Amino acid sequence: MTAEPLELGVNSHILAAGKRVLELFASVQDAPEQFPLWSASDSVAARIQDPTAMPEHGQSLDDTLAQAVELMQQGLCNVSHPLYFGYISPRPHPAAVLGDFLGSALNQTPGAWRAGPSATMVEVEVLHALRSLFGLDPVVGRLPGGVFTGGGTLANLIGLKLAREQMHRQHPQTHRADGPGARIYMSREGHFSIAKALDVLGFAADALVEIDTDEQGALLPEQLEQRLAHDVALGYTPMCLIGVLGTTATGAIDPLRRIGELARRYNAWFHIDGAAGLALAALPEARRHMQGLNDADSITFDPCKWMFASFGVGCLLVRNGEMLGSSFWAGGPYWEERGELDTFKMNLYGTRQFRSLGVWCLLQHLGLEGYRQLLRNMTGATAHLRALLSADPAYCLIPDQQIMPVVAFRPVTANAESVARLVVLCQQRNLAYPSVLEWKGEVYIRVAISNYQTSTLDMERFKRALDGLVHELGFSLPRIL
Amino acid sequence: MTAEPLELGVNSHILAAGKRVLELFASVQDAPEQFPLWSASDSVAARIQDPTAMPEHGQSLDDTLAQAVELMQQGLCNVSHPLYFGYISPRPHPAAVLGDFLGSALNQTPGAWRAGPSATMVEVEVLHALRSLFGLDPVVGRLPGGVFTGGGTLANLIGLKLAREQMHRQHPQTHRADGPGARIYMSREGHFSIAKALDVLGFAADALVEIDTDEQGALLPEQLEQRLAHDVALGYTPMCLIGVLGTTATGAIDPLRRIGELARRYNAWFHIDGAAGLALAALPEARRHMQGLNDADSITFDPCKWMFASFGVGCLLVRNGEMLGSSFWAGGPYWEERGELDTFKMNLYGTRQFRSLGVWCLLQHLGLEGYRQLLRNMTGATAHLRALLSADPAYCLIPDQQIMPVVAFRPVTANAESVARLVVLCQQRNLAYPSVLEWKGEVYIRVAISNYQTSTLDMERFKRALDGLVHELGFSLPRIL
Repeated sequence: MTAEPLELGVNSHILAAGKRVLELFASVQDAPEQFPLWSASDSVAARIQDPTAMPEHGQSLDDTLAQAVELMQQGLCNVSHPLYFGYISPRPHPAAVLGDFLGSALNQTPGAWRAGPSATMVEVEVLHALRSLFGLDPVVGRLPGGVFTGGGTLANLIGLKLAREQMHRQHPQTHRADGPGARIYMSREGHFSIAKALDVLGFAADALVEIDTDEQGALLPEQLEQRLAHDVALGYTPMCLIGVLGTTATGAIDPLRRIGELARRYNAWFHIDGAAGLALAALPEARRHMQGLNDADSITFDPCKWMFASFGVGCLLVRNGEMLGSSFWAGGPYWEERGELDTFKMNLYGTRQFRSLGVWCLLQHLGLEGYRQLLRNMTGATAHLRALLSADPAYCLIPDQQIMPVVAFRPVTANAESVARLVVLCQQRNLAYPSVLEWKGEVYIRVAISNYQTSTLDMERFKRALDGLVHELGFSLPRIL
Repeated sequence: MTAEPLELGVNSHILAAGKRVLELFASVQDAPEQFPLWSASDSVAARIQDPTAMPEHGQSLDDTLAQAVELMQQGLCNVSHPLYFGYISPRPHPAAVLGDFLGSALNQTPGAWRAGPSATMVEVEVLHALRSLFGLDPVVGRLPGGVFTGGGTLANLIGLKLAREQMHRQHPQTHRADGPGARIYMSREGHFSIAKALDVLGFAADALVEIDTDEQGALLPEQLEQRLAHDVALGYTPMCLIGVLGTTATGAIDPLRRIGELARRYNAWFHIDGAAGLALAALPEARRHMQGLNDADSITFDPCKWMFASFGVGCLLVRNGEMLGSSFWAGGPYWEERGELDTFKMNLYGTRQFRSLGVWCLLQHLGLEGYRQLLRNMTGATAHLRALLSADPAYCLIPDQQIMPVVAFRPVTANAESVARLVVLCQQRNLAYPSVLEWKGEVYIRVAISNYQTSTLDMERFKRALDGLVHELGFSLPRIL
């Protein structure tokens, strides 16, 4: 068929092509194991090197989507599979995906009231709901208590920009990025996005001071305290103290309250990177381990991690939105002021994608209690895996805080090379998709559960698969008779 | 209905709820005038001030999406309406929307080969296709010739970061953001995102030098040349020269070749902000007016403007992707190196939304020639409106280059206040949605055509509506007998 791009009566075309996508979506959600955990055809790999040109003449919408559906299956990372354990890549929740689709179909942006009235309102409601769900104090000031971004890196960037501005107000002599001795403190297990953001902001690499962690991966507060005293004595300015809420490697939570106290003592900004881990604050039993959340000046949170939105939606939560309003400015001769809520004036972005609708739909569909149930399913499956591994002397685990859905372990007799080999075999044979973790000089198998349907039975299946590989690769402990 | 979040057999639920969104989408695309150009209920406005809390217990997926569909209609900026002329807010193309939906449903990210093999490949293909479509030279080096971002602001930010790094290499004494006298040059009509990006990068506000424009809104190259000579004599370092390809106000194109020559003369980075206007380079008749595109070191382009993707997808095109690879770094103990293409190492973002699939589907569906046809429909409708207004002595137009689908004009006898009144009436009576433009001391009516289905007949309809308002408000010229 030839494209008739200007034809009227597109109704049936959109319905047919859209149904094709919907059916694949429903089918993957219904039976995720029909597709391998990971696959890429030779053709997909070849086209990276030698991209196929776009056609001069088109084809029907339905044929196009059929082609796209086929192409995606040729090179799929199947994050909906219950044994996909890589990185932090969630099974996307249908409510979030369909909500995002609705916002996209109407092309609303929450960047300005006049460009998306309901979109702006939905974003305000979601920010409000997230603060409440995680036990954060009510907002100060008339602006919303946060902004949405395209992910955690951008949220961290904005948080650090606010920190820089506070430093400039307090220490006018360090009035620009390379002011004498601005320092930012974070544990060695913090995310690389912080270094990226500091580089963007114009800080030299040595502005970031990395503090050692305990055996679970949490920052050592005594070391932070000593380092702060030492640096300040030498004339450095502590600009920002960062607490990590859920490290990527082992899910560790830093001692947030202690870090917050030190930030206050040194008039430094206190930023929490909770991109992954803040989600767990929805559970009272987990939030007990996050004392100090409300001491933070800014918190990064990614709904596209353990809130099951698709990739590319983050937010920065702040107690006082006015700080964002004074950090960012925007306008133009084509934008007359009307006193409406224009969030593009409190964000790095101009027009933005409307991703909060997916989160809104997810929370409306599940209810807060339903969302907690999904989290508990993940933490329950994680605890089951921990128990299975702990009970088996053939494995040793990295001790962890047992809060986040992350487990790292290895066969006790395996070396770095053989652990990597085990992970590759596991992936290649479509048994499960864990990843490799380097941790304090050793190599481990890392499992992050980001699929709210992964069950304890899946964990038993995984353990059996591991045992088989351990046996096959000859890692079994000598049996002591 | 109560939510059963962990239930199996979700197939029928997803299909039913998804069909609801699809049907609204098809219906809006089919008959966009069934909804007003802009509307917001009192309830939506009230919830901005007093957000509704999320429920403790959920509801069915279908009920949730029904609620979301209803809510969006209560506060809709109807960009699909053929007489929506605000800002640059496109009618989203079904192929782009459905492609994005597919990527989101499978939760693939193009940030790393292992997290999205086809996604990574599709992004490479789209970058390749865009370069070819716009007549850009082939890429140098082994990395893709650009990166995708969440919009033009982020693309401009990355381009300016590359410029800063070139300056640091050439002038080590200006090795940080507030090095002595780094200067960035752009016309007064450039977009506010440049100032935002420079602020993020750590430059003081006076680092951006604004150059006057001609009566059409294009940068005056003689003034730029004089200012450069003057600044360099005083010891300033020209870090970056920015050429605007399609100003937001009037669609003006700067003299790119001249700016590129000056950039070379002063060893400055040459960045083109073509967020909106680069799309028109797909038309040979328009590209003739863009000489110098290939002199640019980096170019910003937004598929979410005149390429009809939904909001929130931009890209930065560069001749040499290695510059991005050396600007950004990323990694972690949980990410073992395998020599694969990981675009998160050449971008500000970590994991990212997969928005290039929408563009890929759009270009596959329309074909390059079909896409050109949509652009020509817009430029044709724009030319028709220009002709209607030019032929009528009751109106005066801002002289423009007649390349971009933007027209600004006013009733000759109207003052600032009455122009604003006319625009408000036009919007309130659902006649059309132009916006207000302040231009060189006068106030104009601005019309941007971002809807590929807006026709010459729509323009005649709009002109009649204008004439009626002009008559009603008493702006008519005294008839000379």
